[in-house]
Amino acid sequence: MAGAKLKNALYAQSGGPSAVINATACGVIEAARKAGSRIGKVYAARDGIVGVLTENLIDTGRETDAAIRALRHTPGAAFGSCRYKLKGVEQDRAKYERLVEVFRAHDIGWFFYNGGNDSADTAWKLSQISAQMDYPLIAIGVPKTIDNDLVITDTCPGFGSAAKYVATSIREAAFDVAGMASTSTRVFILEVMGRHAGWLTAACGLASDRAGAPPHILLFPERVFDEADFLARVKRTVDTVGYCVIGASEGIKDSDGRFLAESGAKDAFGHSQLGGVAPLLAGLIKDKLGLKQHWAVADYLQRSARHIVSKTDLEQAYAVGREAVRLALKGRNAVMPVIRRESGRPYRWSVAEARLEDIANKERKMPENFITPDGYHITPAARRYLAPLIAGEAPPPYRDGLPDYVRLKRIPVRKRVKAAFEI
Amino acid sequence: MAGAKLKNALYAQSGGPSAVINATACGVIEAARKAGSRIGKVYAARDGIVGVLTENLIDTGRETDAAIRALRHTPGAAFGSCRYKLKGVEQDRAKYERLVEVFRAHDIGWFFYNGGNDSADTAWKLSQISAQMDYPLIAIGVPKTIDNDLVITDTCPGFGSAAKYVATSIREAAFDVAGMASTSTRVFILEVMGRHAGWLTAACGLASDRAGAPPHILLFPERVFDEADFLARVKRTVDTVGYCVIGASEGIKDSDGRFLAESGAKDAFGHSQLGGVAPLLAGLIKDKLGLKQHWAVADYLQRSARHIVSKTDLEQAYAVGREAVRLALKGRNAVMPVIRRESGRPYRWSVAEARLEDIANKERKMPENFITPDGYHITPAARRYLAPLIAGEAPPPYRDGLPDYVRLKRIPVRKRVKAAFEI
Repeated sequence: MAGAKLKNALYAQSGGPSAVINATACGVIEAARKAGSRIGKVYAARDGIVGVLTENLIDTGRETDAAIRALRHTPGAAFGSCRYKLKGVEQDRAKYERLVEVFRAHDIGWFFYNGGNDSADTAWKLSQISAQMDYPLIAIGVPKTIDNDLVITDTCPGFGSAAKYVATSIREAAFDVAGMASTSTRVFILEVMGRHAGWLTAACGLASDRAGAPPHILLFPERVFDEADFLARVKRTVDTVGYCVIGASEGIKDSDGRFLAESGAKDAFGHSQLGGVAPLLAGLIKDKLGLKQHWAVADYLQRSARHIVSKTDLEQAYAVGREAVRLALKGRNAVMPVIRRESGRPYRWSVAEARLEDIANKERKMPENFITPDGYHITPAARRYLAPLIAGEAPPPYRDGLPDYVRLKRIPVRKRVKAAFEI
Repeated sequence: MAGAKLKNALYAQSGGPSAVINATACGVIEAARKAGSRIGKVYAARDGIVGVLTENLIDTGRETDAAIRALRHTPGAAFGSCRYKLKGVEQDRAKYERLVEVFRAHDIGWFFYNGGNDSADTAWKLSQISAQMDYPLIAIGVPKTIDNDLVITDTCPGFGSAAKYVATSIREAAFDVAGMASTSTRVFILEVMGRHAGWLTAACGLASDRAGAPPHILLFPERVFDEADFLARVKRTVDTVGYCVIGASEGIKDSDGRFLAESGAKDAFGHSQLGGVAPLLAGLIKDKLGLKQHWAVADYLQRSARHIVSKTDLEQAYAVGREAVRLALKGRNAVMPVIRRESGRPYRWSVAEARLEDIANKERKMPENFITPDGYHITPAARRYLAPLIAGEAPPPYRDGLPDYVRLKRIPVRKRVKAAFEI
């Protein structure tokens, strides 16, 4: 086989999974397989960059074409992901050198890192340090995050599907509440993800397809939570509509800038671990307004619901994977394939190229003009942006009534580096 | 029109909606429309029995065939439902007489009450009191409850779809957690409905399709919650599998018989209003085991998720509606169409007939042999029972990326009774 002389490729997943990150993996691996005359082995790191550091690599060549194809319809992170942030090159030099050492041992010529801001930063630094170390490496970032907070790209693969999930779920729950409100539940709250930006909260608003249709109130992390104003609005809605449906961000804050549902826990990136805004709001409504309420917290369901992904999102997720390989083969280094919106209606998109240094560690906020002046709903501009991202269905295959997701064999690559590495 | 001389039919929805109760409404109305030579107007009560008491009726004849057909794919209670329990005939005689008065004013010959145990009781009592009052009425109960707790019937329409939702959701979340566990979340908890019976908790178990596959732990309301034993099991699972996925009933109780998440609130039937077991368990796991955890509470999402109903359940929901009309036209009174399992593998079912008095106020428990001896999972017997109920998919139509649900016109019928009635 020619593979012995060719450079190998390495793909890794980072951060919270999405319903379509494995579609990106599928795009990378299928494109790399097709480029068999130029790319040798196609490896994946087990658990993201942690797997590179510890030299836990997986030989994707041992997976069948059918298994790789099935990644397109399988949620989670098929090779394992991680929350593990590398610091600056000076502070974490030993780790970066270790990464290059592992690359060298396995003759990695192309590295594809699939994640958000932090992963783009890691890929970018790797491209720098490998150059300093005279190790020829092409490092490509591949976008993924349900937070939709990467700059330059029109949207982030994973977001459109989570958006479709939350909009569908809040519409469905609203139909339920509407039918019961006269003698039972008057207020329903759905808590959605989005630490610092209200992208998913805004997506809930898509379920409201005409004036007065639920959800009636959205609570954005971009707006200070004003208890009295909120309660007055809930009461007014119940008085006029008969019931009130609320989409609330996990990240809403009080006037002192404190998260309402601060748990005190922090994740590996130093972010606060949140959850529990919905029961808190429900308690408030019960105590202050005396209304019967129900609440749901979607948590991981919203980012793993492969059964209701957006077809647009799925296609974009696959496309950025495929394009990452194309860019790599063109010799482009330290770049990321991004989504460009060519037109709004009808929605047309293409994959463009951005420099990792322009993306790394930057955070896209939701535009100010996406939130209505009263602070509680989305504007037509938000709808124009969001609507195409949730368009189209792409259900998985079902077996015995449940989605039939693939579990890969994940056969390890034999270790070649003498020294072990402790995380 | 012949309608003037024919007796009219009245359909009403009761209790918590399901993803398919409107499919039953569709079955009733379509069958009644087909029987136009024998049935006059087809009315629906607004908000269940409350709408009969207050004489708020809807003329379903003003809805197009297409709108009625669309009920098959619309969640919630299209005509409104209620939580309003009538007491015994002696205690609530004025209300029963009022019901008969409204029936008489609108020449109702057939009454179809779509709900659970309590509704079956109301329909049964109505058939008795109307006989006592010499008012000719055929009262038919039509089964509906995601709680799956009606006796005689093999299953209750609505349950199979909620079961499919929770099993799908926990499988998807488990794929997410599995991919992240090495450096992040180790334990995930999904809280599901089911006050006193673990039917939906058991359904979570279907997601575990091979030994060791998640969910790893199910917490049933049928078992006393033993904190130490539970925590030891979580720890053991994390130590061996790397992560732990838990399906927990909202109704789990401690050794004193107290609900773990007792909120103190009661609904109109006097049931405690629950919610919040998942965050409670998560706090326990964090404090006692120091493991990072996430939790979701599905709440109404599980009973309104029309986008992922079981085709089997949908067909049964429609069939019981259609059969209710057939029984009524045969002159059967105080009965309910129920599902009979003709064979397990392959699953074959038919619609049979049961007497309301054999169903009213009885509650089917989950069989003892559905829970494994250790108390934390389901047995093969449970799988044999549950698996066919979630089989098949029947997605709704989508528009602009979201399920396209119908909103009926709900044109009121002119009131004819002089006296008003205060609920």
